[in-house]
Amino acid sequence: MNKYNFSPGPATLDNSVLEIVNQNILEYENEGFSILEISHRSDIFENILENTKKNLKDLLNIPSNYKILFLQGGATFHNTFLAHNINLKKSTSNLVTGTWGKKTYEDFVKIRDSKEIFLKSSDISEFIKDPSLAVNQKTDYLHITSNETIEGIQLRNFDQIENDLIVDGSSDIGSYKFDWNNVAYIYAGAQKNLGIPGVTISIIREDFIEQNENPTYLNLSKLIDKDSLLNTPPTFSIYVLKLVTDWMLNAGGVEYFEKQSQDHSTNVYSMLSKYSDHVSLPVEEYARSKMNVVFNFKNEQIEKLFLEESLENNIIGIKGHRSVGGIRISLYNSIDKPAVEYLLKFMSSFFEKL
Amino acid sequence: MNKYNFSPGPATLDNSVLEIVNQNILEYENEGFSILEISHRSDIFENILENTKKNLKDLLNIPSNYKILFLQGGATFHNTFLAHNINLKKSTSNLVTGTWGKKTYEDFVKIRDSKEIFLKSSDISEFIKDPSLAVNQKTDYLHITSNETIEGIQLRNFDQIENDLIVDGSSDIGSYKFDWNNVAYIYAGAQKNLGIPGVTISIIREDFIEQNENPTYLNLSKLIDKDSLLNTPPTFSIYVLKLVTDWMLNAGGVEYFEKQSQDHSTNVYSMLSKYSDHVSLPVEEYARSKMNVVFNFKNEQIEKLFLEESLENNIIGIKGHRSVGGIRISLYNSIDKPAVEYLLKFMSSFFEKL
Repeated sequence: MNKYNFSPGPATLDNSVLEIVNQNILEYENEGFSILEISHRSDIFENILENTKKNLKDLLNIPSNYKILFLQGGATFHNTFLAHNINLKKSTSNLVTGTWGKKTYEDFVKIRDSKEIFLKSSDISEFIKDPSLAVNQKTDYLHITSNETIEGIQLRNFDQIENDLIVDGSSDIGSYKFDWNNVAYIYAGAQKNLGIPGVTISIIREDFIEQNENPTYLNLSKLIDKDSLLNTPPTFSIYVLKLVTDWMLNAGGVEYFEKQSQDHSTNVYSMLSKYSDHVSLPVEEYARSKMNVVFNFKNEQIEKLFLEESLENNIIGIKGHRSVGGIRISLYNSIDKPAVEYLLKFMSSFFEKL
Repeated sequence: MNKYNFSPGPATLDNSVLEIVNQNILEYENEGFSILEISHRSDIFENILENTKKNLKDLLNIPSNYKILFLQGGATFHNTFLAHNINLKKSTSNLVTGTWGKKTYEDFVKIRDSKEIFLKSSDISEFIKDPSLAVNQKTDYLHITSNETIEGIQLRNFDQIENDLIVDGSSDIGSYKFDWNNVAYIYAGAQKNLGIPGVTISIIREDFIEQNENPTYLNLSKLIDKDSLLNTPPTFSIYVLKLVTDWMLNAGGVEYFEKQSQDHSTNVYSMLSKYSDHVSLPVEEYARSKMNVVFNFKNEQIEKLFLEESLENNIIGIKGHRSVGGIRISLYNSIDKPAVEYLLKFMSSFFEKL
């Protein structure tokens, strides 16, 4: 039987997506070869690539002055890649709201000057209420991590910030609509909301792209010129990205998933509030992630028991990150209502026993 | 029906590998989740990773003072990665025997000094017969591309070169035994002889690994410390690499594939020699690749006809690279005897008609 997988990523996939993959492993659409064997130089693959880009444009409402690029190496490679491709005459600041943003900052300053702006959860709430905090940052580009998976902190109202943004959207892309006005660059590993590991999606405003003398795989302009086909791309990961975005569009697009994540996270946070004698929520309400619900039990023994019983009940992937401990429930796009209902029922009966 | 796929890569996979993948898409080994959803932090994935490394050690007879690392971005990323991780006090030279080696050289010199040694096919034959040419290169590390897929040039007797080598083995790794004595670093995209796109295998002698201040994804030492799990690895591509190396070990290991590629390539080259009135072989005999057989028809119209008829006969992937034209027949590990027999029969009947 299938487990209830609330992992922080790689995430679960909708069963309809798995079924289509399954139909194309031995032979891809009667073409005489497997999807795993497809040539990246074939018309068939170019068609998959074009459709994937079209899906993303439709889903995320990407304006026409943006380019889409598929690379490898995850957001971790991308931090280095970005630092090498931001014009050195432009100033950057890094808004650090958690572990991943901190890592981006640390990679940036290995390559270029950048200013760290460290915000705690309580400050982020204040920040979202009063974006002048960011406006006062005189910087050409402000890097933000829209959702910090480890700490469960989300900062998604880009339009409340006046700076031009570079966004690591790895763990919440495709779960809410946003205004592109001040987004210069957004990148995201696919393995949480959009697919499987192995491909990173970048969406880049044209004015950001400048020629430089970087070696090939650090050269944004060259990679854009070759339209993700400069070298062999991760063909299968791109194919799954296409299937997931097909599925998302059919389900109702980002509007559908925005409402779903709103509903899911509200239900989980509400239950936790109800049992606040036993659990604490480390993140201020205004900054709480709709993707990763992070909490701690006040009693460590009970937390241990909760994890044990969740496993016995076929719920997996909810142990908090080793750096912060506690519990983390990830509610990415492929988590459906029955899964959350099952989880809530388990949690409720666990809490009622205490 | 399945086509006969002699593509330069991504390559065909043995049907037994596709069948195992197919059994694990909807659910991985009764674990309650798909192989596509597996967590890279799970014991199950760590087991896959360990077994993949063990397979590679067994297959390639890797000595105990080497580390194995799985990265993304293909050989193209690796060129940049290497240039950033070779100690700046060490000198390097690049032996350029074709397109890919040239690209490596061009990326190297963006980051560090390196000397280009350009060899034509005829010189490579001389070089292999008299490696003093390389011995005379006073360099700490000599970068070579063991097989140039575009030109069909192979240089695989590493032990005839006295320099410490850095080898791009992307298109022939796993197709012959080699002596590790002077191999400091070998890297290879998996998508030709070992699997599907999305993962690059690196095998690194310990003395090559030095701490430096590079940003994370350009930092060999940090990536080695985290044993390929510094960030989310390409889980599925690694899984397929495990399956392909399982299959190779069961088939008889590298010895088996070395003999197979010897047989396959000898048969194809012999047929081409027989019809030398119609075709020409651009590569000197001593440097001819056992992986990519490259040839040209003397008459362009006949070449066009050959390509058309091959497609009609369900033979795909044999059009030469756009930069050199002609025909290229790739004979990677998963090409079995019946496929080559089918190809030879087609070629023979085509030539006989002329």
